[in-house]
Amino acid sequence: MLMGKVVGSVISTRKSDALVGNKFMIVEVCESMKSEGQRLIAIDKIGAGIGECVLVAQGSAARVGSGMENVPVDAAIVGIIDD
Amino acid sequence: MLMGKVVGSVISTRKSDALVGNKFMIVEVCESMKSEGQRLIAIDKIGAGIGECVLVAQGSAARVGSGMENVPVDAAIVGIIDD
Amino acid sequence: MLMGKVVGSVISTRKSDALVGNKFMIVEVCESMKSEGQRLIAIDKIGAGIGECVLVAQGSAARVGSGMENVPVDAAIVGIIDD
Amino acid sequence: MLMGKVVGSVISTRKSDALVGNKFMIVEVCESMKSEGQRLIAIDKIGAGIGECVLVAQGSAARVGSGMENVPVDAAIVGIIDD
Amino acid sequence: MLMGKVVGSVISTRKSDALVGNKFMIVEVCESMKSEGQRLIAIDKIGAGIGECVLVAQGSAARVGSGMENVPVDAAIVGIIDD
Repeated sequence: MLMGKVVGSVISTRKSDALVGNKFMIVEVCESMKSEGQRLIAIDKIGAGIGECVLVAQGSAARVGSGMENVPVDAAIVGIIDD
Repeated sequence: MLMGKVVGSVISTRKSDALVGNKFMIVEVCESMKSEGQRLIAIDKIGAGIGECVLVAQGSAARVGSGMENVPVDAAIVGIIDD
Repeated sequence: MLMGKVVGSVISTRKSDALVGNKFMIVEVCESMKSEGQRLIAIDKIGAGIGECVLVAQGSAARVGSGMENVPVDAAIVGIIDD
Repeated sequence: MLMGKVVGSVISTRKSDALVGNKFMIVEVCESMKSEGQRLIAIDKIGAGIGECVLVAQGSAARVGSGMENVPVDAAIVGIIDD
Repeated sequence: MLMGKVVGSVISTRKSDALVGNKFMIVEVCESMKSEGQRLIAIDKIGAGIGECVLVAQGSAARVGSGMENVPVDAAIVGIIDD
C-alpha cells in the first residue's frame, strides 16, 4: 500500500454503471513513498476527508473485502492513518 | 485510477478475436498524475470523445463490471470527468 | 495497453512446460507511450512480424481470451496496428 | 519480490473491517533493487521487526497462501532474509 | 516478461509456510529492457544458474502453470534464454 493525502475529488456524471454511488478522491502520494508527490484517483469507502492522510491499496486489492468485486476500480482508500 | 485526456484512437484490423467490436483510444495522462504526460491505449465502453477528460482503470479492473472478463485489455475508460 | 514495435525475438529451449509452442517477441515501446523506448518480451498469438507496430496487453490481460489461462506470461501481442 | 528493510510502522484506527488485526509496516527498498530507496506499506504476517531485511510480495501475491484472500492489501512481508 | 541475468540468491529461513522449498534468485534486468539494471527477487522452478540469462514473468503470471497458485510470489523464472 502507499500513504497519501487526500487533496480533492472529481465528479463523473457519465460513468460505468458499476461505479454509480462511489466517491472519487484525488490522493497525493506522501514524501519518501514510491511515486512521491504524484497523484492518483482512489475510491473512498471509509469516509476520508480532504487533508487526511490515508492508506491506499492498488490493483485487484482495491476490489476485495468490501463487496466491490464487480466495480472497475484499481485504487481504494482502505484506512485513515492516525495523527 | 488515473485522469487523462483522449487525444486520438488507433485502428487494428488484425487482432485477437476477443477484441472485435472495441474502440482503442489514446489517452494522455493529465498533469500531476502518476506517469504525467505519457500515453496509453484504453478500451472505451462509454463513448468518450477526443478532447474529453476521462477516468482510466488499469489492470484487471479494466475487465470487471462490463462483461469483458474474457477480453485481453489492461486499461479501460470508465468515466468522463465533469467540466 | 501500449503500442510498440516488434524488433526481434528470443529463443528459450529450457522453459516452463506451459510455455512450449509460444513465440517470444521483443517489443520496443513507441514514442510518447509510457515506458517509451524500453523493451519487453511478449507472447505472440496473432502472427506479428519484425518491424510491425503492435498493441501489447500486460498483466493478467495477457492470459485471457485465448486459452492461455495456465500459461505463465505477463505480456501478449493482441493486435497489429494498421498503417 | 523485492528486498527491503523495515523502518517503521503506521497505525490506522479507522480502516476497512477486513484489515482489522493486521500490522502495517513501512519498508524501504534496498539498494540496487527496483524502486531503490523508496518506501511502501506492507502487511506483516511473520513477525518482522524494525531493522530487519525482508522479502516483500506485491500485487495479488500479497493475499495468497495465508488466508487473506478477502483482505484489501497489495504488499506483504513473506520472508525475513538471513544475515 | 523481462530478460535478466541471475546474479545471486538469497536465503530466508523464517518465511511464509507456503514458500518452503523454493529458491529465491536475484535477477538483474538486462540492458534496454524496462527497469534496466535494477534487481528483483524471483522464484526459480526450472534450475537456472548464476550467470544465466533468463525470462522472468511478473505479477499473477508467476503463479500459474506450475502448481503455485497458493504461493505468495510475484516473479518467477520461466525460461532460460539460449546463447
